[in-house]
Amino acid sequence: MEKIKIGIYGYGNLGKGVETAIFNNSDMELVGVFTRRNPNSLKTLHKGVKVYHVDDAKNMKDKIDVMILCGGSATDLPVQTPEVAKMFNTVDSFDTHAKIPEYFASVDKEAKDTNHLSLISCGWDPGLFSLNRALLEAILPNGTNYVFYGRGLSQGHSDAIRRIKGVKNAVQYTVPYDEAVEKVRNGENPKFETVREVMWRECFVVLEDGANEKEIEKEIKEMPNYFEPYNTVVHFISEEELLKNHSTMPHGGFVLRSGTTSEGVNQVAEFSLKLDSNPEFTASVLVAYARGIYKLNKEGKSGAVTVLDIPVSCLLQRTNDEILKDLL
Amino acid sequence: MEKIKIGIYGYGNLGKGVETAIFNNSDMELVGVFTRRNPNSLKTLHKGVKVYHVDDAKNMKDKIDVMILCGGSATDLPVQTPEVAKMFNTVDSFDTHAKIPEYFASVDKEAKDTNHLSLISCGWDPGLFSLNRALLEAILPNGTNYVFYGRGLSQGHSDAIRRIKGVKNAVQYTVPYDEAVEKVRNGENPKFETVREVMWRECFVVLEDGANEKEIEKEIKEMPNYFEPYNTVVHFISEEELLKNHSTMPHGGFVLRSGTTSEGVNQVAEFSLKLDSNPEFTASVLVAYARGIYKLNKEGKSGAVTVLDIPVSCLLQRTNDEILKDLL
Repeated sequence: MEKIKIGIYGYGNLGKGVETAIFNNSDMELVGVFTRRNPNSLKTLHKGVKVYHVDDAKNMKDKIDVMILCGGSATDLPVQTPEVAKMFNTVDSFDTHAKIPEYFASVDKEAKDTNHLSLISCGWDPGLFSLNRALLEAILPNGTNYVFYGRGLSQGHSDAIRRIKGVKNAVQYTVPYDEAVEKVRNGENPKFETVREVMWRECFVVLEDGANEKEIEKEIKEMPNYFEPYNTVVHFISEEELLKNHSTMPHGGFVLRSGTTSEGVNQVAEFSLKLDSNPEFTASVLVAYARGIYKLNKEGKSGAVTVLDIPVSCLLQRTNDEILKDLL
Repeated sequence: MEKIKIGIYGYGNLGKGVETAIFNNSDMELVGVFTRRNPNSLKTLHKGVKVYHVDDAKNMKDKIDVMILCGGSATDLPVQTPEVAKMFNTVDSFDTHAKIPEYFASVDKEAKDTNHLSLISCGWDPGLFSLNRALLEAILPNGTNYVFYGRGLSQGHSDAIRRIKGVKNAVQYTVPYDEAVEKVRNGENPKFETVREVMWRECFVVLEDGANEKEIEKEIKEMPNYFEPYNTVVHFISEEELLKNHSTMPHGGFVLRSGTTSEGVNQVAEFSLKLDSNPEFTASVLVAYARGIYKLNKEGKSGAVTVLDIPVSCLLQRTNDEILKDLL
């Protein structure tokens, strides 16, 4: 059987995760990594992986079935995806929730015009969590959705601390309060007035020589939007300790719907994740959905879609007979 | 907007749950309940619900968009569904896992020949649990699925106890062992040799006057397949206590996949349910999927399908714009 030919567009943590995930799927082949950097400067995880400059992509339209975009949501994807969707089927993890409608529209146009299929905002949130929010709303129309994140590393918040003068390195974990989680899981339908009641932030910070602990702790805790609305705990540690204990990227969380089907009859459904590596898991979701995008485009589907539009059966390396026998 | 017109075929606990669920969905209309009994003898939960004999269904082909079959899997559905699929789009909860392939084939033929769409084996297991087994296998190909049931009432096991001579009434709960659940959730990937390590069975039994506790406890515990392979605890209680504390039908459980994305990097994903009423929740799943079956048949899809073939977006009372804005 011919393998599904995948390209990786952008090679940070997520791109590396996609490379790893492709090698976990026997029906897939990594055609190459596309980078804006000098291709010769880039070292891939696996030997023999080809590296191209992004400008070479336009000459490889027939060599790639699905291009997986691994750039950032702030500035990369809004520009890259509509362009790449003119040449390839695409999968991306655009995660700026508020801008998804306009992003969808811009990708949809280019993909439709060129008969490509583009899956936007894949991953776990948006992505698997969106799928469960929607599925559970459909099943329990009288109910409330709850989402909790953590315990997990927040890249954005870690970066915000690192930008403070006097900070050499830092890692920030988002941690939900056990009491809040318990109330939700027990079907008590709590109303949380502020994010402060739901989760707190734990920071591990390495200082530059001569920096002042008190001042930096204050600056972190009072940072608007990032830390001010939360209870924040700051630990100062050595660089050795940071590298030893805080160099992986764990994450997790859950989406839960609590609803009633009749007077006093409560039903609780939950989808949860506990991840040793956020980028490797996110990448694994992108790669599974790349299989679905490949199959659906072969069936003639085009334009932009989300995970809600993809039947789970087409994500599998399985025939319908096998699904009926083994998975149902 | 025109409402989706639903029929209920069979009126036990599940049929009543479907009636309740239809009234929770503002875009749906219950055309009527179809029964093999005398329609005049049947009292529905809501006033004004029409009751027909099953023989009347053939005269109502244009009045019903989706017929939801609520009969049992042992003898009702294998006969009823292929017949009803000739007249209507259908949704059912056929749950004899081993016979799903042959059941699928028999329904598929009749539905395809008449351009109807038939969703088989919907509910939570098979159903939502199947969806998650499949989704998580696709995302984490190197991993193991675990399924736990309970704490929940098992209708089949309760019936088995009630058939024992000297037993007046009985209820049986399936209970997973906390230690087993913990190991799985921690990503320890335990191998369970027997079902005895995974869950136990708790029975609440009301005796007929003069029946012998010791003998009946022995008969329950030694019943092949049902109780012999498990640790079983039997409580003898009064009929009053049974009616007061054991007359609802709670259930639950979870499906979990634990897998690795690279050496030593473990990822755990779990879908869990905690249900006050098993039949009302199962019914709510059937009704949500009835909306999807209605929409997909309108788009021209026919034959037998499973929940894995249905995109979640078509289960919702929402436009794509609303989905992008509110759910992604």
